[in-house]
Amino acid sequence: MAGDLILLAAVSLLSACQQSCFAWLVGKSRKQHKIMPPEVTGTPEFDRIFRAQQNCVEFYPIFLVALWIAGWFFNQVLAALLGLVYMYTRHKYFHGYAESAKGRITGFYWSVVVLLSLMALAAAGITNSFLEEYLDISIGKKLHKLL
Amino acid sequence: MAGDLILLAAVSLLSACQQSCFAWLVGKSRKQHKIMPPEVTGTPEFDRIFRAQQNCVEFYPIFLVALWIAGWFFNQVLAALLGLVYMYTRHKYFHGYAESAKGRITGFYWSVVVLLSLMALAAAGITNSFLEEYLDISIGKKLHKLL
Amino acid sequence: MAGDLILLAAVSLLSACQQSCFAWLVGKSRKQHKIMPPEVTGTPEFDRIFRAQQNCVEFYPIFLVALWIAGWFFNQVLAALLGLVYMYTRHKYFHGYAESAKGRITGFYWSVVVLLSLMALAAAGITNSFLEEYLDISIGKKLHKLL
Repeated sequence: MAGDLILLAAVSLLSACQQSCFAWLVGKSRKQHKIMPPEVTGTPEFDRIFRAQQNCVEFYPIFLVALWIAGWFFNQVLAALLGLVYMYTRHKYFHGYAESAKGRITGFYWSVVVLLSLMALAAAGITNSFLEEYLDISIGKKLHKLL
Repeated sequence: MAGDLILLAAVSLLSACQQSCFAWLVGKSRKQHKIMPPEVTGTPEFDRIFRAQQNCVEFYPIFLVALWIAGWFFNQVLAALLGLVYMYTRHKYFHGYAESAKGRITGFYWSVVVLLSLMALAAAGITNSFLEEYLDISIGKKLHKLL
Repeated sequence: MAGDLILLAAVSLLSACQQSCFAWLVGKSRKQHKIMPPEVTGTPEFDRIFRAQQNCVEFYPIFLVALWIAGWFFNQVLAALLGLVYMYTRHKYFHGYAESAKGRITGFYWSVVVLLSLMALAAAGITNSFLEEYLDISIGKKLHKLL
């Protein structure tokens, strides 16, 4: 089974690296602005970077759930691609937020769009599997026949 | 294998939607109370809603781990049902907390009870699999014979 | 497949228990220092304990991703052992941080070393699987032949 889900695993590992990178940038900003733990506020710039990372942390498990279920029950390649796009939107969000509070908006907006797409794919995949498993109806095959 | 764990996947996706919903309610409360990011405090009402979401974020990965291991190694239907109950207790917790600090207590208490139940099932399932795998002892079969 | 990944499941469940324990210690510290929710600051000691837990929460999903991919694509026993070591470094970190801000450093440093090791194993495992799957090159087998 390992081979079957390798793209999801690769995207998950990359996103874990990205999350680590965000945490490292917070640490770097701490040193620059001399804000010693356990302090979490100080200069406006540090506050923004810290909040940017916190927001990414909040959404990370939601992203992983949506990514894996979409990839597993719908289509792995599509889910993995959307996963990469999500990482890019989070990159934009984080660095935009670090610049200014307004700079976070575009990246955040698109990250939500991508996340909702992944969730929609996941919901479609699960619904289809439910129908096949419990009602023996295969929408996928019916669509194939129609086209 | 996808079909085997479909109930766990469905509950995970629903809980990811719930977590997203909590995050959205924090954003809505920000607008109502005019608390602009990166601020995370302002009015007592916003503070409570923000902490309610943060607490749900803290427990979400723990919940996912307990849900999947309980469902995988013990019983999927039971774990999925407990997962739905956990979501309900978190719903009560969040909205109770939004009303008043005292309002959080009942929901939180029951969410902990459900989480500990999932963890107990997960531990039982893993122990049983260990015994079967490494010592070739099947408690499940012995219980069946006794009853 | 359940039996194949039982060690990863066992370590994940133990780490979920540890995370719950950290959350419980924050609650205990709240009572001791009479810091009522939704407050998250008060005495320096509480602030340190709270930040220690928050940091563990931030890294927990990253750890789970690295643990499972390393165990799945590289070697389960090695990944599970590193997972246990990670839990130990987080234990040192949390209790060191509770004592003093300086006390967090050693535990944190080693937790990062272990996390990076898990990520390196995961990356190696995924790369190897990619080569086998898409280019039909098996580094594992070549190494076996050489030795």
